[in-house]
Amino acid sequence: MELYRRRFRKKHIIMKRILFAFITALLFCNMLQAESVISPVINADNSVTFSIYAPKASSVLLAGEPVNFHAVEMENDGDGLWSFTTSPLRSDLYLYHFVIDGVFAIDPSNTYLLRDGNDIYNYVILPGNRGDLYIPQDVPHGTVSRVWYQTPVLGTQRRMSVYTPAGYEQSGREYPVLYLLHGQGGDEDAWLVMGRAAQIMDNLIAQGKIEPMIVVMPYGATQHQAIPGEAGNEGMYRPKFDGAYNTTMEAHFKDILNCIDTNYRTIKSPAGRAICGLSMGGEHTFQIALNYPGTFDYVGLFSACARVRQINGKEVFPEFYKDTEAKLERQFAANPKLYYIAIGDKDPLYQMNVDLRKLFDAHDWKYVYVESTGGHTWYNWRVYLADFASRLFK
Amino acid sequence: MELYRRRFRKKHIIMKRILFAFITALLFCNMLQAESVISPVINADNSVTFSIYAPKASSVLLAGEPVNFHAVEMENDGDGLWSFTTSPLRSDLYLYHFVIDGVFAIDPSNTYLLRDGNDIYNYVILPGNRGDLYIPQDVPHGTVSRVWYQTPVLGTQRRMSVYTPAGYEQSGREYPVLYLLHGQGGDEDAWLVMGRAAQIMDNLIAQGKIEPMIVVMPYGATQHQAIPGEAGNEGMYRPKFDGAYNTTMEAHFKDILNCIDTNYRTIKSPAGRAICGLSMGGEHTFQIALNYPGTFDYVGLFSACARVRQINGKEVFPEFYKDTEAKLERQFAANPKLYYIAIGDKDPLYQMNVDLRKLFDAHDWKYVYVESTGGHTWYNWRVYLADFASRLFK
Repeated sequence: MELYRRRFRKKHIIMKRILFAFITALLFCNMLQAESVISPVINADNSVTFSIYAPKASSVLLAGEPVNFHAVEMENDGDGLWSFTTSPLRSDLYLYHFVIDGVFAIDPSNTYLLRDGNDIYNYVILPGNRGDLYIPQDVPHGTVSRVWYQTPVLGTQRRMSVYTPAGYEQSGREYPVLYLLHGQGGDEDAWLVMGRAAQIMDNLIAQGKIEPMIVVMPYGATQHQAIPGEAGNEGMYRPKFDGAYNTTMEAHFKDILNCIDTNYRTIKSPAGRAICGLSMGGEHTFQIALNYPGTFDYVGLFSACARVRQINGKEVFPEFYKDTEAKLERQFAANPKLYYIAIGDKDPLYQMNVDLRKLFDAHDWKYVYVESTGGHTWYNWRVYLADFASRLFK
Repeated sequence: MELYRRRFRKKHIIMKRILFAFITALLFCNMLQAESVISPVINADNSVTFSIYAPKASSVLLAGEPVNFHAVEMENDGDGLWSFTTSPLRSDLYLYHFVIDGVFAIDPSNTYLLRDGNDIYNYVILPGNRGDLYIPQDVPHGTVSRVWYQTPVLGTQRRMSVYTPAGYEQSGREYPVLYLLHGQGGDEDAWLVMGRAAQIMDNLIAQGKIEPMIVVMPYGATQHQAIPGEAGNEGMYRPKFDGAYNTTMEAHFKDILNCIDTNYRTIKSPAGRAICGLSMGGEHTFQIALNYPGTFDYVGLFSACARVRQINGKEVFPEFYKDTEAKLERQFAANPKLYYIAIGDKDPLYQMNVDLRKLFDAHDWKYVYVESTGGHTWYNWRVYLADFASRLFK
């Protein structure tokens, strides 16, 4: 009972009564003790200690990025407090969760939570050279909007996220636009939550390292209209985020362009438009740049699934990929200001990008190539965004 | 291994490799079996069945609104699948979570998730008269924006959520504004996620039951700038949402008004402005209406913590509440179009609202009174919003 009294004393008198019914639920569990756990804790050497109170568990795992995408056994202190301390980590954003006796669990001590498709993670950001870019700093902040657009091509309405830089509302001037595309399994939240796009833009604009720009983040999986719960009751509390790649994103991209150029003060010329994307979004980028000639002066492929395999003899979406080489010829004849290819040395799509560059080299099509360490990860994509955006509209 | 093969076959070849590391983590747990669980399931009689696979657990509870804010034991089918079926529920939105051997757990089969302060819940919406208002329908959707504003009064920048109705961008006309305030423990997300404000507005505007309006949802706890993770690294992965009531919300409300009237096409007169709020937000509403004379023609108190106790002889924020009666006199002398008081018959603040109405009655100040069944719950506040909004700007 002492625990209850302590808890109650902390609470506003009104909230006490209101919460009473839920407190009843707490009687049945150990969530009060859990409330006093602090997790995660960033230690002086940049290791991180994760903890959870689970006195009846026989096994608790920590899974995710802080342990290099693996799952490790946590240690019980004998009183039911399970902990694990990582090795020192570099400054970055890390996703994690627990597994208690085989069951997925979030960290009840950490309110920082995000959703990647159907997967829920807690996250922790280690300050420093990368992390400071992802942490909101005391700088002017842009506006992030959830914008619905009509797509006559698909015969429906769909949602996208739009970032407008600080000062947009009052400046009266026209802004360049970056179209920023997510990968398979993502949605219009992906670049905002895993990608920290708004924080990266806010911080780099404030530092004068990138130009103020509008950033448009559409939903690349056209079978859905918006994130789960905001797109009509699809009758699925666990929507399917997978699905074979198809070409509807490219086909209806004109409707996105039209919505943005109609409703925002945009620079409506190639010099004021950039497009980039990761993985599947890299393929979308590759194709949209090809099929919307005279639209973009800046193109960025991040760990892109850029299939030029038809050119190499394989049939992949033959109808869609026909004339790829001719279209690339036309694209580069217009002298784009930047064609940017970035990938990690351990990325499973590495060879695909080697093939792509071979093709470009054979035709003397100019591109900037950035190779980083590591694989197909948000660690890399956030850095590519910061780097790519710093090269735009100058 | 068969399970792995089946899972792999479902996955895109690229995603297979990318996910491999996380699959390693899955080897240690039963999350593959968990993936085949469907939860929640809405049954034909409007009961709901919740399920979770936890073969090693000795106790699993279902907690939250579907079981009337209590926690109930779920039943193990002998193979580790725990289930509970509620009694038939009326159409509404319900928050819930599990408790496994004393540890908080979300429903891993349900991607619909929301955050209320530091508490995470899954939710389920039962279609019907209420639920249909909270489910996104195939109607034109407004835009929801996260907007930062400067507040010279508090010497910082803070964030609010702003809903603009479908058609705002192109109409060119001026819109009325509803200021919609949350309760203690909430933030600028509260009315959007628990309150389903965007869906309620979209659906009722489409039905012609309410006028298109801008809805502004500020963050009433001024010690924070924005929701966790988007307000600077406060050094707390579990921020404190409580805290004694103070008057800074009212004091800096002029900065919110200024931002909205500067950056949006608003009707800048009392006839074009409404304000309402729940619980602590009801107190904010009460005070803001008093202290910004000539600003609002419509005022709504939802389960409000409207302390008129100084008038009744008790000292509550004496400096702030002084002259309350004289200010109310002035407010009603201006003939506001609507003063709306709504509360549930089981609400712990019921008597406080009786006292308030006695005061109003004694002075013959006109108000609309709505008394519903139940207590201090989002069930009621969503209904009050729909009702109050339908009475505005006509």
